[in-house]
Amino acid sequence: MTAAAAPSHTAQPWPARIENPDAPGRAVVICEHASNRFPEAFGTLGLTASQRRAHIAWDPGALGLARELARALDSPLVSAPLSRLIHDCNRPPDAAGAMAARSEVHDIPGNAALSAAARLERVDAVYRPFHDGLRALILQRMTLGLAPVLVTIHSFAPVFHGKPRSVQFGVIHDADRRLADAVMVAAKALSLETRLNQPYSAAEGVTHTLALQATPYGLPNVMLEVRNDLIATPDAENQIATLLAPVLAEAIAALTPQSGTAAARTG
Amino acid sequence: MTAAAAPSHTAQPWPARIENPDAPGRAVVICEHASNRFPEAFGTLGLTASQRRAHIAWDPGALGLARELARALDSPLVSAPLSRLIHDCNRPPDAAGAMAARSEVHDIPGNAALSAAARLERVDAVYRPFHDGLRALILQRMTLGLAPVLVTIHSFAPVFHGKPRSVQFGVIHDADRRLADAVMVAAKALSLETRLNQPYSAAEGVTHTLALQATPYGLPNVMLEVRNDLIATPDAENQIATLLAPVLAEAIAALTPQSGTAAARTG
Repeated sequence: MTAAAAPSHTAQPWPARIENPDAPGRAVVICEHASNRFPEAFGTLGLTASQRRAHIAWDPGALGLARELARALDSPLVSAPLSRLIHDCNRPPDAAGAMAARSEVHDIPGNAALSAAARLERVDAVYRPFHDGLRALILQRMTLGLAPVLVTIHSFAPVFHGKPRSVQFGVIHDADRRLADAVMVAAKALSLETRLNQPYSAAEGVTHTLALQATPYGLPNVMLEVRNDLIATPDAENQIATLLAPVLAEAIAALTPQSGTAAARTG
Repeated sequence: MTAAAAPSHTAQPWPARIENPDAPGRAVVICEHASNRFPEAFGTLGLTASQRRAHIAWDPGALGLARELARALDSPLVSAPLSRLIHDCNRPPDAAGAMAARSEVHDIPGNAALSAAARLERVDAVYRPFHDGLRALILQRMTLGLAPVLVTIHSFAPVFHGKPRSVQFGVIHDADRRLADAVMVAAKALSLETRLNQPYSAAEGVTHTLALQATPYGLPNVMLEVRNDLIATPDAENQIATLLAPVLAEAIAALTPQSGTAAARTG
C-alpha cells in the first residue's frame, strides 16, 4: 500500500449549474448527462467531433426535457456542465464507467491509461463540485421544510449494440421505490411504452446519484429515462415534457405529505 | 408551501479537522462528537459551564481515543470542531437531534425556537463543511486505491436517564455489517464487556455518518462506542486504544481485499 499523494488542484472546479434555486416545488430535477462539452483543460479525449456529439458523450435531449419539466413543476434544475466521459457524475469515482475507457462500441483513447493523479484531478474538478453543489441545494430545501424529492432525467439510444429498443419511457428505482411506483401508477394512461427498470436498472450501477443524494436523507427519488429519438428537437422535448409533467406532479402529490422529512425518524 | 429564502451566510464555516491526511492505513477514523467548543458566533445556547462540559455537549474521551487509534492504524483522523449541540454532524439536518432542544434530562434553551433561517445557518456553517471535507478525503483515498474503511469513534455515559449501563464497548452497524461482524469476531478475547448494537443501534438514528459517507460508495464501516468512564484521562484513553487497535487491525485485515473497491460493481 502506497502513501496517498497530495491532492491535485491543477484543474479549475466545474460547479453544478443550478437554475431557479428558489422555486417552491418539491421536485429537485437533476441532469447529470446534460452536456457534451470538452473544455481545453481535459481536451477531446481523442474522440472525433461526431463521437463527441453521440450518446456516449451525453444524453441528447435530456437537458431540454429536464428544463421543461422543472419549469412545469416550478422546481429547480441542477445539471452537470461537462461531458460524462470526463467524469460521469452518475457513477462513483472508482466505477469503471466513471471515466470510461470504452462506451458501447467506442474506445475512449483519452481515458485508456489514466494515472491515479489524473483520475483524482477529475474527481476534484468535476465530480465533487457537482455533488457538493447539488447537496447544498437539497440540504437547504430540507431545512426550509420544502420536503424535496429527487428526479433525475436521462435519455437512451434507440439502438444499442445493434439492437433496437422498444421501450420509450423507463422508470428506474434504487433502494427506495416509493416515487417510482407512484410514477408507474400515474403513467398508466400515458401514450408511451413505459417500463419499470428498463432499459437499465440499479443492478447495472446507474442509480448512483439517487443512492448518494436521496437515500441517506430518506428523500423519495426516481430516475426517468426517455428514448432520445423522442426528444430530438426543442419542440419534441416540449411535447414529451407536456406528457410527463402531469404524471410526475400526480406521483409526487400521491406521496404521503411527510415523505422525506424527519417526522418519523428518531433524533 | 413558501418560497425558499436565499441561503444565509452570516456565520463563518467550520471545516472538518483532518490529521494525517496522507497516512497510508485503510481506516478513516472519524469523531463527530470530538469537541465541546461553543464559539461566539453561536453562543452558549443558554447552558451552564457544567452542562457544556457534560456528555450532552460532546463525547468525553472520544477524540483522545480516536487519535490514538488513528496513530496505531497509521490512518487519518477527521473530527468535528464544535459541540454537537450547535449541529450534530452525526444527524441529518432535519432530525430532531440535529439541533436538539432537549438532551437526556437537559433543556437546551438556545435550540428551543430556532427559525428555519437559523437552522440553515448552522447547516451551512457546521454540518456541510464537516461532511464535504470528510467526503473529499474519502474520495481521494478511494481514487488513489487505498480501499478506505470508515470507523466512527463515540463515547457514552455510564448512567443514562438514571440507569447504569454494564456494556463497556459497543459495536454498531448500519446497513452494511461486514466490518462490525469482523470486529465482533476479533473482539472475542477482549477484556471488555462487548455488545453488538448496544447501547444504541441504527434504529435510533445514530449511524448517519456511515449511511451518508460509506454506504453509497460500498465502503465497509462501523461505529464504535466506549463507555466514557473508561477513557476519562489521557492515560486511560491510551490504555483502551492499546486494547482496541489490534482488534480493529485484525478486523480490517479479515475483510476481503477488494471490499470497498469497484471491482465487483458494474460501470
